[in-house]
Amino acid sequence: MIKVGIVGASGYTGGELLRFLKYHSDVEVVAATSRKFDGIPVYKVHPNLRDLELKFENLKPGEIDADLIFTATPHGASMKIVPEILEAGAKVVDLSGDYRFDDVHVYEEWYHFKHTDPRDAVYGLPEINRDEIKKAELVANPGCFPTGAILACIPVVNEKLVDTIVVDSKSGVSGAGVKPTTVTHYPNCSDNVAPYAVTKHRHMPEIQEKLSKFGDVRVSFTPHLVPVTRGILTTVHTFLKEDVSSDYVKEIYDDFYREEPFVRVLDVGEIPSLSSVRGSNYCHIGCFEIDQNGRLVIVSAIDNLVKGASGQAVQNMNLMFGFPETRSLEQVGLHP
Amino acid sequence: MIKVGIVGASGYTGGELLRFLKYHSDVEVVAATSRKFDGIPVYKVHPNLRDLELKFENLKPGEIDADLIFTATPHGASMKIVPEILEAGAKVVDLSGDYRFDDVHVYEEWYHFKHTDPRDAVYGLPEINRDEIKKAELVANPGCFPTGAILACIPVVNEKLVDTIVVDSKSGVSGAGVKPTTVTHYPNCSDNVAPYAVTKHRHMPEIQEKLSKFGDVRVSFTPHLVPVTRGILTTVHTFLKEDVSSDYVKEIYDDFYREEPFVRVLDVGEIPSLSSVRGSNYCHIGCFEIDQNGRLVIVSAIDNLVKGASGQAVQNMNLMFGFPETRSLEQVGLHP
Amino acid sequence: MIKVGIVGASGYTGGELLRFLKYHSDVEVVAATSRKFDGIPVYKVHPNLRDLELKFENLKPGEIDADLIFTATPHGASMKIVPEILEAGAKVVDLSGDYRFDDVHVYEEWYHFKHTDPRDAVYGLPEINRDEIKKAELVANPGCFPTGAILACIPVVNEKLVDTIVVDSKSGVSGAGVKPTTVTHYPNCSDNVAPYAVTKHRHMPEIQEKLSKFGDVRVSFTPHLVPVTRGILTTVHTFLKEDVSSDYVKEIYDDFYREEPFVRVLDVGEIPSLSSVRGSNYCHIGCFEIDQNGRLVIVSAIDNLVKGASGQAVQNMNLMFGFPETRSLEQVGLHP
Amino acid sequence: MIKVGIVGASGYTGGELLRFLKYHSDVEVVAATSRKFDGIPVYKVHPNLRDLELKFENLKPGEIDADLIFTATPHGASMKIVPEILEAGAKVVDLSGDYRFDDVHVYEEWYHFKHTDPRDAVYGLPEINRDEIKKAELVANPGCFPTGAILACIPVVNEKLVDTIVVDSKSGVSGAGVKPTTVTHYPNCSDNVAPYAVTKHRHMPEIQEKLSKFGDVRVSFTPHLVPVTRGILTTVHTFLKEDVSSDYVKEIYDDFYREEPFVRVLDVGEIPSLSSVRGSNYCHIGCFEIDQNGRLVIVSAIDNLVKGASGQAVQNMNLMFGFPETRSLEQVGLHP
Repeated sequence: MIKVGIVGASGYTGGELLRFLKYHSDVEVVAATSRKFDGIPVYKVHPNLRDLELKFENLKPGEIDADLIFTATPHGASMKIVPEILEAGAKVVDLSGDYRFDDVHVYEEWYHFKHTDPRDAVYGLPEINRDEIKKAELVANPGCFPTGAILACIPVVNEKLVDTIVVDSKSGVSGAGVKPTTVTHYPNCSDNVAPYAVTKHRHMPEIQEKLSKFGDVRVSFTPHLVPVTRGILTTVHTFLKEDVSSDYVKEIYDDFYREEPFVRVLDVGEIPSLSSVRGSNYCHIGCFEIDQNGRLVIVSAIDNLVKGASGQAVQNMNLMFGFPETRSLEQVGLHP
Repeated sequence: MIKVGIVGASGYTGGELLRFLKYHSDVEVVAATSRKFDGIPVYKVHPNLRDLELKFENLKPGEIDADLIFTATPHGASMKIVPEILEAGAKVVDLSGDYRFDDVHVYEEWYHFKHTDPRDAVYGLPEINRDEIKKAELVANPGCFPTGAILACIPVVNEKLVDTIVVDSKSGVSGAGVKPTTVTHYPNCSDNVAPYAVTKHRHMPEIQEKLSKFGDVRVSFTPHLVPVTRGILTTVHTFLKEDVSSDYVKEIYDDFYREEPFVRVLDVGEIPSLSSVRGSNYCHIGCFEIDQNGRLVIVSAIDNLVKGASGQAVQNMNLMFGFPETRSLEQVGLHP
Repeated sequence: MIKVGIVGASGYTGGELLRFLKYHSDVEVVAATSRKFDGIPVYKVHPNLRDLELKFENLKPGEIDADLIFTATPHGASMKIVPEILEAGAKVVDLSGDYRFDDVHVYEEWYHFKHTDPRDAVYGLPEINRDEIKKAELVANPGCFPTGAILACIPVVNEKLVDTIVVDSKSGVSGAGVKPTTVTHYPNCSDNVAPYAVTKHRHMPEIQEKLSKFGDVRVSFTPHLVPVTRGILTTVHTFLKEDVSSDYVKEIYDDFYREEPFVRVLDVGEIPSLSSVRGSNYCHIGCFEIDQNGRLVIVSAIDNLVKGASGQAVQNMNLMFGFPETRSLEQVGLHP
Repeated sequence: MIKVGIVGASGYTGGELLRFLKYHSDVEVVAATSRKFDGIPVYKVHPNLRDLELKFENLKPGEIDADLIFTATPHGASMKIVPEILEAGAKVVDLSGDYRFDDVHVYEEWYHFKHTDPRDAVYGLPEINRDEIKKAELVANPGCFPTGAILACIPVVNEKLVDTIVVDSKSGVSGAGVKPTTVTHYPNCSDNVAPYAVTKHRHMPEIQEKLSKFGDVRVSFTPHLVPVTRGILTTVHTFLKEDVSSDYVKEIYDDFYREEPFVRVLDVGEIPSLSSVRGSNYCHIGCFEIDQNGRLVIVSAIDNLVKGASGQAVQNMNLMFGFPETRSLEQVGLHP
């Protein structure tokens, strides 16, 4: 039994961490911090957690006596608190973008912050970094779009079959967070599809850096907001350098993901649906069709709050502490 | 470990039964029948159950060697197959309307069938019939609207505080089943609210019969289809015969449901949300406000496919076999 | 050709006023005020009005040289500016609640404001006040819920057939205005149905006061927010004092609304849909079914921003200036 | 005043033709055919057209005495009836795919029909064929996706700035027609994004053939179904062959569309929204951003049932008969 704290527990990723940890036999949640909701029962903010006898507390990260702390804090805020948590002896899974980049200059260019704590961290995508995660003190939990995009691309990049990749992603609105804005206002989202940060989204360099370890590729990325609450559907358009078949491509994916507990490779022509993975830690990957121009299309589906955030964070925690990797994450998707 | 079969497993309630039984440590699913999908892997129809190594089979109910069979069959079809299942020695939880009524004439009047098997069954709402369910061979699983409406009304009816009840329910579209119709066509449902069977819905006499056991009431009921996939939000408008306070009413609910594992009573003025219970077996009940005319408003929220169907069916199974009542149903709602 | 100004033109009702006036052959819009968007082209806020060569201006109402001014201002703000507009010689259609009540004490009790300008105004529901509107200097445009509820109830109240009325309304989110809030945050609205102000909504006394002119009734009212952008579907549950038939009730409605340009009476059992009236000034009324308890159900559908706000305001303007009542409002609903 | 007939008037495009023609001062609709709804008032199927005193008739096309007939018939059916209509002396705007291709072999390859009437027709996209449309007897109304994609691409293709084009389109569900299917079943569409016909959609060769007239390009196309009722949002990803700026690209679009009544070019970085054009015949085009790989992104928005079908058909009719091109199409989008 380990003691776990959550810093920034009132947002959507905080709520999802609490949902999964509630089922976890090896974890006791000792603190859920929130400045705004100090003293308020957790269920007042996360009404699905009605029975949770836990209150938000306005604690300093260093005050939490825990074996691991999830920092569900904004970009730029994590780097201010992670050092003292590590010094206090707890491990950290950070859900912000602060520690995701090998190259701190890329971070600073795209996040417009001076990085005050450019230490090494392990990029927490278990499908590519499982062994490093097991030994890590600090894991940088991947971004939601990168999780869907990287998992969809790696096998074909790894085989050097492509060099130009266009990622056209469609995200549910929960990805924008719990705070109401003009963008998330119901009449603006509903019955609409809204491309945003069309050529300038901060997840582009993250996808680029991670894929570059597997092959020489140029990544273009455009996200869209769609009238969906949870889920990211990623459509990857990429041009094959060799004349291979869809079946051949699918085999590459089968081989790459054979042992993965949370990745499922669908048949050629089969399209993943968001409901297949809703609420779950699974990533479904399918399609593998090739058109008359040699364009290969790969489609992936994840729940942005789970495999794209809190579920993956718990998966990382399981690895870091030697728990079974799937513990508390067995739930399948909620369909329909 | 018991052996369980599902007759009519390709619909939404079949999929949800399979989802919950997948997590159940005391159950082995030995058969999932479907005429239409005979020989097809279950996951082709329920894509969230990707790892399930089970195929639909076109079996006759009597051919299934099971301790319990869920009959997720249409109204009128259950009564044709339940007798032979019972004779073969299996217990039954029937999800149709065929065995829900004490008075078979009411059934025949509202369902427009001659009942060919008017035997006794236990109405499977554990909150009112727990002990009878434990001993039952045949449990009639309640309708989705009645579950939300009866749970919202019983305490106040039981106290003889009201005699006129107007139930205005709003249901997600999954309640209409898996088969596409004009009513469930996306452009007709989306951005619309559609009252239907306004004074003639078959769940009205079910609510009336069950509430009448607790007090002398006249029930009026109108369901609406809303652009929601899962969930029923029930607004009960009822007129108080005595001048009592909201706090007093809430106390009655607290007392009535204190020990219930799946009912949660909210505070005065607190409104349940569908996401609080989405995917879960919980029923949240709240509001308790009283207006200038003595109208008391009670609001309940359930997931129509879970507490309103398959979750409750599993809860009944747990009771019938002496398993812990909440086994495999611990999941909380998926919020947001 | 008259000159028209709009005070508070950046909200949804402002946008809709501009949309209708754009088509109006007798109107020139001379000013669209907004403090926040001063100097900004109107189409930056209302992107459907791309070709409109009009900018928002931060004008004082008294500075606008107009024959009529629409005050699309918040409750409490209208009463501060209407007096000076009237003094300057312009007529006013006020879209706030400030001038809707005959009894200023009711206003003060429900709106929690001291009324600083308790002058007479005409309640702008043409179906009951057409002649008074024609002569009015100041018209109080009705609330959105009252428009749908009053039109649904008047004929049967007028015939003294009922005395207890329960109005259960379902509103699209645009009714909450253009400003993002927790309530209108997409993940909170989507896949949800949310009763609010269950017994305390300010539109209740408005419905009560207007219906009381036609008969002695007690009105109970509960609104719900539904995942719809535009439209109000009103379900009226009322108990008949006499044993009359649905056909008889429908005839009463036919007679009452025979000459009305914007009200359509549907057949017995026919249910209005929101798409029938979306974007249009029509109100459809139907159902007229009666249940075993003598409960009569009436259902009405309007677009909350049109017949429930800006369309009706233009209809009032047409009457006030002797234009054909339907001018610029001929558009039918957008279905699907 | 011309006489107009609509063959296949009970579908969505039929309903929209009737909506626009209702406002048209030069048109009398003399027939709306439907086999299924013979004798039924039109408003029973298109409830927004409540006042229309027109009934569906099961007429043979040759029996309609009209100056122009819209054939809103399925692919493969139009070619069977268009010859006799033309022989009877009426002009035709055909909304199917039957006459859209210059090269009948491409049609036969992608539509899997033998073409029985390979006559010349004018492709009815006024922005590129206005003069030919004016003189045409038979106009092939463009597909919905091609309208959005071609308008978004032509200027940049015409300037020979690109040769590889990836069109990633997102369509509302009304594009799938009025007939309920598994794909359009609410629980399957809602909260989902579904790529379909990923590399094999019949609109791909249509886009390819028309763009090829303006430059040497390879078009890849993938449509997605999104939880939206009306509208197509098209994201064009294309790689610039020369190092030009966003401003330069926008100028090309300004120049190309300067005189167009229904195309609006937005600013660099400005994204069109579906509500801007909902219910209207407008096409908004914007974005023009260029990323680090020289990828240019163009985004267009149309209403699939209007500029993507019936509105454009009426625009074509206006041109064919010398009416003002915008007549009856002045309506702007319904926002929000």
